[in-house]
Amino acid sequence: MNWIVRETGFHKERITTNSNKFMIGNGYMGYRGTMEEFAKSELTATTLAGLYDRVGDKWREPVNAPNGLSTRIYCDGSLLSVLEEEPLEHEQELDMHMGLHRRKTVFNAPGDNRVTLLSERFCSAERLHLIVNKITIECDKDCELRITTGIDGDVWDINGPHLERMVGRVEGKCLVMNAWTHELNQPVSVVEAIDCEFGEQTMITEEKSIYRQIIIQYRAGEQYTLVKYVSVFTGMDEVENTELAAINSSKEALKLGYAQIFLEQAVKWSRKWKLSDVIIEGDEEAGHALRYSMYQLHIIAPDQSEKVSIPARGLSGQVYKGAVFWDTEMFMLPFFLYTQPEVARNLMMYRVHTLGGARRKAAEYGFEGAFYAWESQETGDDACTLFNVNDVFTGRPMRTYFRDKQVHISADVAHGIWQYYTFTGDESILLDGGAEVIWECAKFFYSYAYYNSRKDRYEILDVTGPDEYHERVNNNAFTNMLVKQTLFIMMEVMKHLQDNHPGLYEKILSIGHNGPTLEQISHMYDNLYVPQPDLENKIIPQFDGYFKLEDVSLAELKSRIINKNEYLGGGSGLATTTQILKQADVVLMLHLFKDRFDQETKQANWQFYEPRTEHGSSLSSCIYALVASDIGSPDWAYPYFMRTATIDLTGESKQYVGDLYIGGTHPAANGGAWMAAVLGFAGLQFQGNGVIISPALPEKWTAIESPISVQGQSYRIRVGKEEVQITAADSNTKDMSFTILGQTINVAQGQAITVSYKC
Amino acid sequence: MNWIVRETGFHKERITTNSNKFMIGNGYMGYRGTMEEFAKSELTATTLAGLYDRVGDKWREPVNAPNGLSTRIYCDGSLLSVLEEEPLEHEQELDMHMGLHRRKTVFNAPGDNRVTLLSERFCSAERLHLIVNKITIECDKDCELRITTGIDGDVWDINGPHLERMVGRVEGKCLVMNAWTHELNQPVSVVEAIDCEFGEQTMITEEKSIYRQIIIQYRAGEQYTLVKYVSVFTGMDEVENTELAAINSSKEALKLGYAQIFLEQAVKWSRKWKLSDVIIEGDEEAGHALRYSMYQLHIIAPDQSEKVSIPARGLSGQVYKGAVFWDTEMFMLPFFLYTQPEVARNLMMYRVHTLGGARRKAAEYGFEGAFYAWESQETGDDACTLFNVNDVFTGRPMRTYFRDKQVHISADVAHGIWQYYTFTGDESILLDGGAEVIWECAKFFYSYAYYNSRKDRYEILDVTGPDEYHERVNNNAFTNMLVKQTLFIMMEVMKHLQDNHPGLYEKILSIGHNGPTLEQISHMYDNLYVPQPDLENKIIPQFDGYFKLEDVSLAELKSRIINKNEYLGGGSGLATTTQILKQADVVLMLHLFKDRFDQETKQANWQFYEPRTEHGSSLSSCIYALVASDIGSPDWAYPYFMRTATIDLTGESKQYVGDLYIGGTHPAANGGAWMAAVLGFAGLQFQGNGVIISPALPEKWTAIESPISVQGQSYRIRVGKEEVQITAADSNTKDMSFTILGQTINVAQGQAITVSYKC
Repeated sequence: MNWIVRETGFHKERITTNSNKFMIGNGYMGYRGTMEEFAKSELTATTLAGLYDRVGDKWREPVNAPNGLSTRIYCDGSLLSVLEEEPLEHEQELDMHMGLHRRKTVFNAPGDNRVTLLSERFCSAERLHLIVNKITIECDKDCELRITTGIDGDVWDINGPHLERMVGRVEGKCLVMNAWTHELNQPVSVVEAIDCEFGEQTMITEEKSIYRQIIIQYRAGEQYTLVKYVSVFTGMDEVENTELAAINSSKEALKLGYAQIFLEQAVKWSRKWKLSDVIIEGDEEAGHALRYSMYQLHIIAPDQSEKVSIPARGLSGQVYKGAVFWDTEMFMLPFFLYTQPEVARNLMMYRVHTLGGARRKAAEYGFEGAFYAWESQETGDDACTLFNVNDVFTGRPMRTYFRDKQVHISADVAHGIWQYYTFTGDESILLDGGAEVIWECAKFFYSYAYYNSRKDRYEILDVTGPDEYHERVNNNAFTNMLVKQTLFIMMEVMKHLQDNHPGLYEKILSIGHNGPTLEQISHMYDNLYVPQPDLENKIIPQFDGYFKLEDVSLAELKSRIINKNEYLGGGSGLATTTQILKQADVVLMLHLFKDRFDQETKQANWQFYEPRTEHGSSLSSCIYALVASDIGSPDWAYPYFMRTATIDLTGESKQYVGDLYIGGTHPAANGGAWMAAVLGFAGLQFQGNGVIISPALPEKWTAIESPISVQGQSYRIRVGKEEVQITAADSNTKDMSFTILGQTINVAQGQAITVSYKC
Repeated sequence: MNWIVRETGFHKERITTNSNKFMIGNGYMGYRGTMEEFAKSELTATTLAGLYDRVGDKWREPVNAPNGLSTRIYCDGSLLSVLEEEPLEHEQELDMHMGLHRRKTVFNAPGDNRVTLLSERFCSAERLHLIVNKITIECDKDCELRITTGIDGDVWDINGPHLERMVGRVEGKCLVMNAWTHELNQPVSVVEAIDCEFGEQTMITEEKSIYRQIIIQYRAGEQYTLVKYVSVFTGMDEVENTELAAINSSKEALKLGYAQIFLEQAVKWSRKWKLSDVIIEGDEEAGHALRYSMYQLHIIAPDQSEKVSIPARGLSGQVYKGAVFWDTEMFMLPFFLYTQPEVARNLMMYRVHTLGGARRKAAEYGFEGAFYAWESQETGDDACTLFNVNDVFTGRPMRTYFRDKQVHISADVAHGIWQYYTFTGDESILLDGGAEVIWECAKFFYSYAYYNSRKDRYEILDVTGPDEYHERVNNNAFTNMLVKQTLFIMMEVMKHLQDNHPGLYEKILSIGHNGPTLEQISHMYDNLYVPQPDLENKIIPQFDGYFKLEDVSLAELKSRIINKNEYLGGGSGLATTTQILKQADVVLMLHLFKDRFDQETKQANWQFYEPRTEHGSSLSSCIYALVASDIGSPDWAYPYFMRTATIDLTGESKQYVGDLYIGGTHPAANGGAWMAAVLGFAGLQFQGNGVIISPALPEKWTAIESPISVQGQSYRIRVGKEEVQITAADSNTKDMSFTILGQTINVAQGQAITVSYKC
């Protein structure tokens, strides 16, 4: 089993791509896969989850901490850097099994001296504030080695500088760097302790940096190893003194030593994989890519905080303002729901904690209830700007309607909480604020909807659906369906509360004064228009008037492109007046509500919309894979699955929209790869009262095996070409029904059952 | 009194402008002020009212008939043309009193021979198919003169060629040219008869032309005069044979002779001016410009047909598809209502005759009733394209929403019919189809509106108001107010019918099956939201969210312009995200409903919106003039009045939107000039039960005098600085009340009353 992602040789043009690809992280922070000798020009970053800052009227974005892993090695006065001269050997790898980054470089130092640098680093999954870096140096020949290693405060910022009043100092054996954020004056402290019992050490303080310089008179055959323990604390952490906390953290790590910290890491990661690792038999490349996708999710999952969620580019930098989008609920949540429900709970509790921002946004636009941020940061206020893309032809900011009109976000949030509740049976999410969120989302939609007197129905007007190339449309099928579902969820939740928690029920009903009554929302539910499949051809119109748009082929549309970075949506984008979509929209709805549509409808819409989809979003491919599997065409699905699963391996994703850099990692696609494999090809679907398995394996796959957890019960499911094996954990506390292509069986704790099937 | 518009000297760069400025016409056809020797490259055109044609998928536009006024004179073999050599003298003039165009050119012919060409032409106001051209030639020296004169079928087209199978032939003394339109195969016949009893005549037939060649051995001191009688008939005319009709027309004119035909013209035009001429005392320039504005309206008024209305560029060519816009109802109708109600009736009957097209448009968009064409041609189907402007940066067609969203057009039509009915008391307009139009417009708005359950009100969403720089807005104040007025008018009309014409009442109610009931529309009327003035500052928001747009100065906005022809509206125009408006919108509403707003509100909104108005439309200035007068600031109004009144004299109007040529005459501005003078400065307002006069003369005006007609009664009103004189015609049949600044008097037939006033 291949747990390694490796690239050999050094290629300057791949620095950015590889820094995404070889990221490490622990949910508290992400560290890009840059080299020790890199600085901000190579986009080196320690990106912090949940700490945001704004400078002037520039975009608000996450803060990158001072880089505690900055190390420069000079051999006989000459800097050893891959940027200076092509190295003799170079290898960069991830060990996904333990969340390690390794690097080996052989430099051609002065006097034909081969200097080998080994570096291993990880963000501790046990100690979230800690990042560890072990460096080993070996040379062919005698020489003078000078190592400067410490904290580089001259960090990469897109819309910074975010850190001010930067002060470096020495505290005992520790290097300390303190700074404060521009907007909210939040302290950020980075401390480095080092295990390095050799050489002659002096301290060097520069304007924004503090280093120790270690000089070694190197003799051939020696090997020097040092370990850096870097700790990061900020004002967002519940500590009184961030500096002190960081010092203590680094000192403790130093005391425990590398072996112990490493062991903790191994244990933590072992658990992650036990709960989640999916094995694909017969397709090593696919298996590796899927594992890598899960790795990316693991390194950014907030498994110890319910105050943060996962940004659209993970912790790979400041792109997309480090903001949380619907990506989390719709593309990442299922992975966590099925594998680590406690993380899923954190993700959804983040929405509970940001309800205030959602209420403010609704009020700002003149609506009731909660209108969740399209781009959510720590408060839930919307970080999304009204001008999101620059027009490549005029250089002018372009008005887009992501913030104003993508109202489905509130439905996505309600859907997410409901999914968590039904999957886990954990009612506490509702009592801890989830029910209130759902109620407020329903209220929002009631206030957003209009009644069409002539047609005697409610409609949802002027929205942008997932297909962002068509802004401000009426009755987007996806949105209307999700809104209807939100009203349904709300009624179910309120019924549940009325029966079981009447106090909370009354309390929620009393929120606000002018809000609608339950009866009014129920009336809307009964009369809300949702676009339906055509009686003849089964096609569902994506929105009112969609079929009147120009029916141009994707090739023809692309031939009209003048500037390769031009945005196809917005006020006058090429796609806006055509049927070309950015991403799955109707087809996503068919996935989310797969039981409500017959196969014929799903197939007709897949075939209709697929050639019209430009896949301008990395969220698109996995949905086409999922629905293709659902309609029994896994081989249509396979290329979409591979495209999704390899997105951060190949780095071949869209890097620019207009002149806006949008690179980084793609957690939604990572989550989508898992969905396509487990929910698509293996065909798993938890339905409240049991699990349905509808296998649809790609031709060359012989089997797929995955652990899952539903309603607190754990199973390993192995789906082969002709049989399904289900193994229930010994620790399970109740039975679960599984239905495989119509055969329903009951699986008790500890049971292992094999069901044969024929497609 | 100055009835002449004159320009001396020839300037090539003014050919297009002057051809607009010196137009003649008679409502059936317009003839641009080009020279006899010009051809299509100088935009020579005989533009026909109501005959449209489409070639392929190019824009549908009016047909230009073959040019029967093509004359080329050669002196000793050398062509006499202002295009070839600068003439020794050149003068072009309009005699507005009789609708004549005159031209005098002295050419420098070979051998220092001064050749003087005089030409006089007019479109007969008595004989709508006839255009007459008298040419006189005199030379200084003996020479050989060769005149080729006939019919040039190689016409100017923007989106042609519209005329096919062109055949020229000789029929007795007539030249005959027949052709057929491309789309509908409508015949177009042009016939020329000539009164020319000299020279040696031969006929010359070219591919698209037919000429006679007249050769004269000229002796110094002689003067030759020829008169051309050109007739035009088309398949739109109610004749069996267009060619025969044209031959008969030209022959008859030839028989009657120039003096008789000219006399008819004088009589007809004398009547026009008797009914309409406004005299401004103390400001000759303004008086001349206003008279010119009325001249432009007279030459395009359909005074003998209710099947055509007035296009936005009159009969000055094919610009704007020769289509009829809301310009007619809102900017031209008042002039005709107050001066020639029979023309006003024709204009409104045009809307009755095009109800079918309006119904088809409503159905096309999924609505009930009548959605009038934004750009209306002979059937009322909408000639407006979805892509109306080209993006100057990419060259791509730009999606605009004039056609889809400018729903106020149906309200404008209802308002126009209601204005006609209340002004004239002529109930027949309602019985002849006007009531049905109004009912259908109200039904349309009922089907267009949405009910906001939370706010318990109807709203009008997703419209474009007069300010076309802000497309697809909600609750545009102007539109909502006009819609409400439409519902009011409908209820008034239906009440009238119920009481007086119960059969028609029942018939109208039974139109369609699914339409709303009167009660439903009445409910909408009672609950329709119309944006109201702010309680504090009295400003009315132009639409929902208007105040949230960037509040940039016009100068700042203009400084952002990159390409001088770039369109400020559309998908990503510079104005769209700002508070800058194209034209009066809220302020137009304040004019139309002047009695419903107090002075404070009118003043506050004028002062708020005026600096935010770019006047990108020629319809804008007159409205600012009108409201400025209304709030007692005629000197704020004056520059706007002058800008409006001189638009076609100076030719200084916007010539391009994107790369689209939009030049031509500006009948709406011409009508606006009249409104600004008579309804604004003189302050006339007919109110159903009498005339109100609220004078607000500009400083240098000592008086303004105008004939008016209301409810079939004729008056001359002279508004001076301190007194108002009202003279009732002897032919009046009833009394009328006049209220001058609060003093109400009754004026009986034949009475002349002077009322002193002090502001």
